[in-house]
Amino acid sequence: MERLRIIGGVAAGMSAAAKARRVNPQLDIKVFTDNSYISYSSCGLPYYIGDIIKNHDSLIARTVEDFARQGTQVITGSRAVKIDSRQKQILLEDLSGSRSWTEEYDRLIIATGARPVRPSLAGAELKGIFTLRNIQDSQAIKAYLKEYQPKHAVVVGAGYIGLEMVENLLAYGCQLRVIEKAPQILTNMDPDLAEIVHSYMEKQGISVLTNSTLTGFQGRDRVNEVTVGSHTFPADIVILSMGVLPNSEIAAQAGIELGTGRAIRVNGRMETNQPGIYAAGDCATVWHLISEQEVYFPMGTTANKQGRVAGENAAGGNATFKGILGTGISRIIDMEVSRTGLSEQECKNLGIAHISRTIKSRTRVPYYPDAGLIWVKLTVEPDSRQLLGGQIVGFSGAGKRIDTIAAALASRCKIDDLYNLDLAYSPPFSPLWDPVLTAINRF
Amino acid sequence: MERLRIIGGVAAGMSAAAKARRVNPQLDIKVFTDNSYISYSSCGLPYYIGDIIKNHDSLIARTVEDFARQGTQVITGSRAVKIDSRQKQILLEDLSGSRSWTEEYDRLIIATGARPVRPSLAGAELKGIFTLRNIQDSQAIKAYLKEYQPKHAVVVGAGYIGLEMVENLLAYGCQLRVIEKAPQILTNMDPDLAEIVHSYMEKQGISVLTNSTLTGFQGRDRVNEVTVGSHTFPADIVILSMGVLPNSEIAAQAGIELGTGRAIRVNGRMETNQPGIYAAGDCATVWHLISEQEVYFPMGTTANKQGRVAGENAAGGNATFKGILGTGISRIIDMEVSRTGLSEQECKNLGIAHISRTIKSRTRVPYYPDAGLIWVKLTVEPDSRQLLGGQIVGFSGAGKRIDTIAAALASRCKIDDLYNLDLAYSPPFSPLWDPVLTAINRF
Repeated sequence: MERLRIIGGVAAGMSAAAKARRVNPQLDIKVFTDNSYISYSSCGLPYYIGDIIKNHDSLIARTVEDFARQGTQVITGSRAVKIDSRQKQILLEDLSGSRSWTEEYDRLIIATGARPVRPSLAGAELKGIFTLRNIQDSQAIKAYLKEYQPKHAVVVGAGYIGLEMVENLLAYGCQLRVIEKAPQILTNMDPDLAEIVHSYMEKQGISVLTNSTLTGFQGRDRVNEVTVGSHTFPADIVILSMGVLPNSEIAAQAGIELGTGRAIRVNGRMETNQPGIYAAGDCATVWHLISEQEVYFPMGTTANKQGRVAGENAAGGNATFKGILGTGISRIIDMEVSRTGLSEQECKNLGIAHISRTIKSRTRVPYYPDAGLIWVKLTVEPDSRQLLGGQIVGFSGAGKRIDTIAAALASRCKIDDLYNLDLAYSPPFSPLWDPVLTAINRF
Repeated sequence: MERLRIIGGVAAGMSAAAKARRVNPQLDIKVFTDNSYISYSSCGLPYYIGDIIKNHDSLIARTVEDFARQGTQVITGSRAVKIDSRQKQILLEDLSGSRSWTEEYDRLIIATGARPVRPSLAGAELKGIFTLRNIQDSQAIKAYLKEYQPKHAVVVGAGYIGLEMVENLLAYGCQLRVIEKAPQILTNMDPDLAEIVHSYMEKQGISVLTNSTLTGFQGRDRVNEVTVGSHTFPADIVILSMGVLPNSEIAAQAGIELGTGRAIRVNGRMETNQPGIYAAGDCATVWHLISEQEVYFPMGTTANKQGRVAGENAAGGNATFKGILGTGISRIIDMEVSRTGLSEQECKNLGIAHISRTIKSRTRVPYYPDAGLIWVKLTVEPDSRQLLGGQIVGFSGAGKRIDTIAAALASRCKIDDLYNLDLAYSPPFSPLWDPVLTAINRF
């Protein structure tokens, strides 16, 4: 019986396991994970911390028992130490390192995910300094918040997770400060749109420092200050959300080729350069459909899609994952931000000719209550007039409009073909000209 | 100086006037309308009645004075009686019929809109029986509601406007009854989805009678009962929302060709069969991009788009309106309904081969508060595997997801090309697999 082995038990790994089982009910499938929780929603963790989600159990899509019932064995608390691709073996050990064993495979899926960047700075060992990646992290943060009731919270890194943490820390009555080393927050958005969010945050009483590099932590046992160059700021709790790095070392050591961002290089079938070895999720590269380049762009949605394709192919099927548009969405208090395709800044960096236009409109007809502001920015290639990307900032109902742009983008159409796009209108839902359509008509 | 004359002062007429002015600042433009209000949002009227919108002024996008300032004369209270296309003249009269005059034109845009169907039944002259089309109608309904505080309200016709009226009449504490002659409510949706809305309405205490034809009204001076065959139902106010008919008689009398639904037949440039005469909006036909047929599908969005194209062409420009997807959206209390393209039922009627699949999901990740139910139904052509249409029913955040389907539909893509569509995910916004994507993956 063919043996499929999977390293990693979260989005990509468990999607792969589930799909492989559907494709081949006979396959011998084992999943190894160094965590005790599997198949959990990382994206839900900030809301668990903020007590919007009361119970961490609800973040778990499927349990070890669920998988066992379909004949898939999940071995928690097992760490993969080495892959021997010639012998087709994995060396594993338990978390204490006291027991190690080897597992043979016919097909292997590497879904080892990513780990948060954690800078090695003075004071980094103090209590109260957290990264957020798994359920244990969120439990530790929640327990710390409840025990010490911090007055001053510092979030380092103003990406999606950082801003979602800000929203959820506000529930604890903390004074919030965000420290971002880039000249703007939300570096995956253009500066003009990021500035709207920045000033909204300041209006909510959140202190936002850009161009600011964290240089250290102070405190006795627990952190009580952070330093940014010559400045110090009170900090009873610090959340580091400075990005992630792919857990690709085990693959590299096995001679598996790495790509952009030192992530495991995969093709559309999720194959690595080693026969029978697949990779998927936050440890792997992905193809960007608009820039037509390999990128490292870790997202939960991509991890699930890649996992499914890896699982299908490893089980003998024939699936392809064509790539991503780079769609993302987040919320900070009442303000929604989303993006898809390429931003103006990304076009500049890639040397792609482009024109961008931004419109300001409302999420509903202006005379309807709660018609919030919305900004839509579109970027177009001037010669081909192809749509390259879109970005949205605005209040309730703004963010998910990015899907309309993503669907248009997926067909690689010209902006001109979209002028009279038939979008849904009724006063509680949209102005007569939906903001996306207004933006399209600016070209 | 070229004379552009426009008959009609609402969506299509005023969009045409505004666009023509932008294209040609010198053009002599006059707009004739038998109403005193111009450029108002018909779609907002139910919400004005329900007092969600307090002031009818906010429904008016642009005033007569606004147009005067750009050199466009709007003559309110003037009714077009006859068009002489040979002499290029319009015969007009004031509302009392005491004064009439002729106007000459070089180009003419007919934007006479539509009128509500009003059945000639016994008792139809009683007070308290209303149709809803313009600001005066809504003022009369609102005044009647405030004066008589009706206990029992009957809405005849369960389309978008009927259901929006139900929602807004509930604000007056009325007991609501809906009477629909078809076997289902929302006849532009498939029966299975309409049934979800039907049973939701019943749960809200609204009595919904399908297969029921209104046969008369009773009352002394004011209506107090309606009859449906041998049944009578209490009715202190009756709203007739039984559809509309195009105001195309003036065009037909001038020898202008009519099309589907006796609407004025136009091509993509909004030209009628008479040189120099254009038509736009609820009095005109429109091309359906998916059925590839001329249809009569009056919508505010289409009226604006057609008006703009008619205005541009009549002013010497060169614009085309390719057609509609048949997108629509509405809300009844907390339930949102939307559609685009062709429904299963429409495919059957048109003899188009199709497969339809319906999924039930949530508007947000299930563990997030207020993750409401959503149903998405997609229809696909089995041989070409082209997407033909979509329908959505569900709670907050459901309805506007139709735009994602509309954008995909506009590119006439295969369902297979959409399997890994990169839609935005974050727990407050969507399940990891957006319901639209879940529906796509059912094929």
